[in-house]
Amino acid sequence: MDFARHFQSQLDALKSEGNYRTFAELERRCGAFPRADRHGGPEVAEVTVWCSNDYLGMGQHPDVVAAMVKTVQACGTGAGGTRNIGGNTVQHRALEVELADLHGKDAALLFTSGYVSNWAALSTLGSRIPNAVIFSDEGNHASMIEGIRHSRADKVLWKHNDWRDLDRKLHATGDRPKIVAFESVYSMDGDIAPIREIVEVCEAHGALSYIDEVHAVGMYGPHGGGVTEERGLADRIDVIEGTLGKAFGCMGGYITGSTALVDFIRSFASGFIFTTAIPPAVAAAATTSIRHLKASGEERAAQRANVALLRKKLDRIGIPHLANESHIIPVMIGDPVKCRMISDILMQDWGIYVQPINYPTVPKGTERLRLTPGPHHTEADIDKLVTALGALWNRCAISHAVA
Amino acid sequence: MDFARHFQSQLDALKSEGNYRTFAELERRCGAFPRADRHGGPEVAEVTVWCSNDYLGMGQHPDVVAAMVKTVQACGTGAGGTRNIGGNTVQHRALEVELADLHGKDAALLFTSGYVSNWAALSTLGSRIPNAVIFSDEGNHASMIEGIRHSRADKVLWKHNDWRDLDRKLHATGDRPKIVAFESVYSMDGDIAPIREIVEVCEAHGALSYIDEVHAVGMYGPHGGGVTEERGLADRIDVIEGTLGKAFGCMGGYITGSTALVDFIRSFASGFIFTTAIPPAVAAAATTSIRHLKASGEERAAQRANVALLRKKLDRIGIPHLANESHIIPVMIGDPVKCRMISDILMQDWGIYVQPINYPTVPKGTERLRLTPGPHHTEADIDKLVTALGALWNRCAISHAVA
Ligand SMILES: Cc1ncc(COP(=O)(O)O)c(C=O)c1O
Ligand SMILES: Cc1ncc(COP(=O)(O)O)c(C=O)c1O
Repeated sequence: MDFARHFQSQLDALKSEGNYRTFAELERRCGAFPRADRHGGPEVAEVTVWCSNDYLGMGQHPDVVAAMVKTVQACGTGAGGTRNIGGNTVQHRALEVELADLHGKDAALLFTSGYVSNWAALSTLGSRIPNAVIFSDEGNHASMIEGIRHSRADKVLWKHNDWRDLDRKLHATGDRPKIVAFESVYSMDGDIAPIREIVEVCEAHGALSYIDEVHAVGMYGPHGGGVTEERGLADRIDVIEGTLGKAFGCMGGYITGSTALVDFIRSFASGFIFTTAIPPAVAAAATTSIRHLKASGEERAAQRANVALLRKKLDRIGIPHLANESHIIPVMIGDPVKCRMISDILMQDWGIYVQPINYPTVPKGTERLRLTPGPHHTEADIDKLVTALGALWNRCAISHAVA
Repeated sequence: MDFARHFQSQLDALKSEGNYRTFAELERRCGAFPRADRHGGPEVAEVTVWCSNDYLGMGQHPDVVAAMVKTVQACGTGAGGTRNIGGNTVQHRALEVELADLHGKDAALLFTSGYVSNWAALSTLGSRIPNAVIFSDEGNHASMIEGIRHSRADKVLWKHNDWRDLDRKLHATGDRPKIVAFESVYSMDGDIAPIREIVEVCEAHGALSYIDEVHAVGMYGPHGGGVTEERGLADRIDVIEGTLGKAFGCMGGYITGSTALVDFIRSFASGFIFTTAIPPAVAAAATTSIRHLKASGEERAAQRANVALLRKKLDRIGIPHLANESHIIPVMIGDPVKCRMISDILMQDWGIYVQPINYPTVPKGTERLRLTPGPHHTEADIDKLVTALGALWNRCAISHAVA
């Protein structure tokens, strides 16, 4: 076997499709976000970031920064072990208490990332509940798909957001333990699930419900408890999963649920047990961020206003974007090479950074720019983005028809 | 299905075997390591940590702490995105350059943890090399086992450290792409693989070799490049994997290898693509730690001296420990309840923290205390530990025979 040749030919295939990825190299500037320095070009240049998942700019909030600095100075840089062997600290405990409270649940469990929380929780539920069937929304994130795959439980895909289809499929499955996995805000289309209907279907069939609120925590609900908080449904969902790496501006992931369920995952999930805990300082920063967003609605309101403003200005010049109820504005391009080209021009000519979203993040043919306005974008930023897109639309001969 | 009852009964089973885990709750004290405050008891008490994987105390090294603080202040708390979408920073790039250099490889790729690096790299290699067979040392870590399982490639277990068995099994497999996965220092027994012989067997069969150096990086080799550096074998191994969460005192994991191999994993591994990058400040701290340990042998020498001293003193009073060439000193107990009891008494009566290592971290019947002397333990610390173990050995009527 010529391994090198195999690797190279697979990479060449990606390149010829236009799906080979190169990473923009940034230097974040605390206090100046969404401004950042871009490296890797002929010279360092300032850019405005329009694709960050630090949705509310909490990664530069003075209290969050101060909590991290203080804890690094007091406790050092790492946890020094797994949660079980020497790596469990007061900061981890406090964060879990905060998370359980955020979602009104009995307990919470911290993981190294949102990816790992989905992967580990779903693979443990699927493999350790005998004869279980997992019903997975067909739009679910890779981390859920991989967790379900790893569990080797039977899997049934249901049509995206279609609770009637879910109902039919649960009905057809008979008397087996059922787990229903879905998201609240879908990351790439920005659409929001009909959570109430899905929950009712789950209840009718005695299914365990599992929701990924990764793109909603911090941003929806009066305390940032996600869409389940906003809609008053948190107590009717068995597992609420989230991340600390997006609106909370840090890193890590978690699940919340009943004491027994959380203790079960804690006790059996390989991806929880056999890995170094996140640094105490990261846990402390996340706790501070959650607390802030529990009490303050300011960031959420400013984000919402900027989302509405950008949509309005895009509409005014006829740039099509997917309609949805969330903070995510997808501008569809539908071709990987064009998508990258537009992104390159925005960066080079306009100092605007929007990463092209190509396969495998979205299905082929649905390549897009994914805009995430935050509370720190100014109206001038929005105007510049809209002007740039308008100019490019003509230059690149992209259809003005709604995608 | 009564989910709650199922969870509870599984937890009860763990409890009745003595394998239910409770986490000690620590507060790390930067500058005082291996001293820490222990919470969760009637009052906060000082303990000496004897089971940390912050093996060299780099988590409190002033330069490492300063790098993290400085970068949090300059760049904020999180990366704000995946490596592809807005989360790739100069700190991530610099760390990967440093890691490639550490192992004398062309390229390196950073993951959120050592667990994820093993899981993602092996599952990608196993699933994306058509018809591959993975040959896995039977002592491999959970993260490798799960990665191999996830790949659904055919798997062949070979006897622990037995290169003759590996050779036979490779021979019997015929003309298929072969991947050989093993560790250098095995975490729980502390034994070191016969890497040269394994590499020669791999070369003879054209197999791709993959080594986990998680418990060796920073600690072995003149620059901390691991056992492969110490033995001059790094350039004969295809993939060297490691962590930033143990001897380097931070968090994160990585692989190093050829440009094409690393680019292949970067381009196809779900566990790399679909997750928020580690905080730039953690990357900066890890880079500083690696650079320090490349230049300084002081920590390694002091660790080695303390390991030898503790072994000698244990021998003197007849406390059996597994013989091995590494820095890990396993004291075998062989019973989960006794193991936890000894650990509890050490904590309560002596202020010594050594987590009991029970199933599933080690096979049932091989429960143990796993001691990890570091450069910051004093001779008085060692004497106190040995005295405590001596007293307990009689009290708990544990055999003095070698386990
Ligand atoms: C829906 C969804 N779930 C989970 C994750 C993973 O979260 P994290 O970035 O914390 O690993 C992501 C994206 O990263 C996501 O989009
Ligand atoms: C051999 C081995 N590989 C990988 C890992 C995972 O590394 P990390 O803690 O960085 O996830 C561990 C322990 O945690 C380990 O013992």
